[in-house]
Amino acid sequence: MDQTKDALYEQPVSSEEIYHGKIVHLYKDTVRLPNGKLATREVMRHTGAVAIVPVTDEGNVILVRQDRYPFSESLLEIPAGKLEAGEVPEECARRELSEETGMDCTELVSLGVYYPSVAILDERIYLFLARGLTQSEAHPDDDEFLRVETMPLKTLVDQILQDEIRDGKTQAAVLKVWAQNQMK
Amino acid sequence: MDQTKDALYEQPVSSEEIYHGKIVHLYKDTVRLPNGKLATREVMRHTGAVAIVPVTDEGNVILVRQDRYPFSESLLEIPAGKLEAGEVPEECARRELSEETGMDCTELVSLGVYYPSVAILDERIYLFLARGLTQSEAHPDDDEFLRVETMPLKTLVDQILQDEIRDGKTQAAVLKVWAQNQMK
Repeated sequence: MDQTKDALYEQPVSSEEIYHGKIVHLYKDTVRLPNGKLATREVMRHTGAVAIVPVTDEGNVILVRQDRYPFSESLLEIPAGKLEAGEVPEECARRELSEETGMDCTELVSLGVYYPSVAILDERIYLFLARGLTQSEAHPDDDEFLRVETMPLKTLVDQILQDEIRDGKTQAAVLKVWAQNQMK
Repeated sequence: MDQTKDALYEQPVSSEEIYHGKIVHLYKDTVRLPNGKLATREVMRHTGAVAIVPVTDEGNVILVRQDRYPFSESLLEIPAGKLEAGEVPEECARRELSEETGMDCTELVSLGVYYPSVAILDERIYLFLARGLTQSEAHPDDDEFLRVETMPLKTLVDQILQDEIRDGKTQAAVLKVWAQNQMK
């Protein structure tokens, strides 16, 4: 164990399952702090997810709008979804892209991993750029109600900077694509 | 209600509190979908938070490294913290910046709002850019173990693009600062 880790490390002591839900699995754990004291950590455990920035040959981004119940608000986001059992992120990205937008892609490039809320949630979202898009047919899950919207990348970046797009994974992934383009 | 909202809207039907914790308040709610069917929504309710990108006159960003229990990993992040009762975001940002890094700032500029995980968590993180930094003394909470690290903005952007910084709010807020600078 390196010194950095040692000086900051929270050692697991015990774990109590509070709720095993459909998506959310909540635990109340006890940890030993670097000063030796005990503390409680409430942790949501999640199976992980993917999110995709689909960019057309013309430089437009394919987005989905849907109602997000925690905010009572419809939000414009990049396509995304949860990993199924045994599914690798690339496979999940192609599936979700196809289900939500009806698009297939010839190229899928990793944009790294995004941790949404590091203090309380262990979810990892694998981010991808999708290019070489071809249209087939959208087929969302039964309980998904989506509307596909398209926007030039630069307009989307402007909307992010103007606080009009509040979904975190969309902010991070789209700005990564834009920053990469700027640095080419 | 506009047509967009109508076509996608999930109507609240009932709400059951599952767990009322220190940070996490978990609810299992029932909603009516646009097709009339009922569905379950697991929602964590959170008091909200702030995160700050502190940039020195020399263009360095002040970061904090801390162990994040859900990942058993020490992560490099921008300073951040939860809103206290009755606290407005700007006030909270100045308090957390001072507590975690020992810095005061003369200028605090909004970088918009960031929703970490829109499907299951109602947390809003208010993002700020802090400039005109002056050093006083750090005074973290009793159960916070932090190490302050400093990095040039461009280096930090490179690390984000190379998947070395995985905290979502740090990715989004730092890339917003960088994109704003590029567009000036």
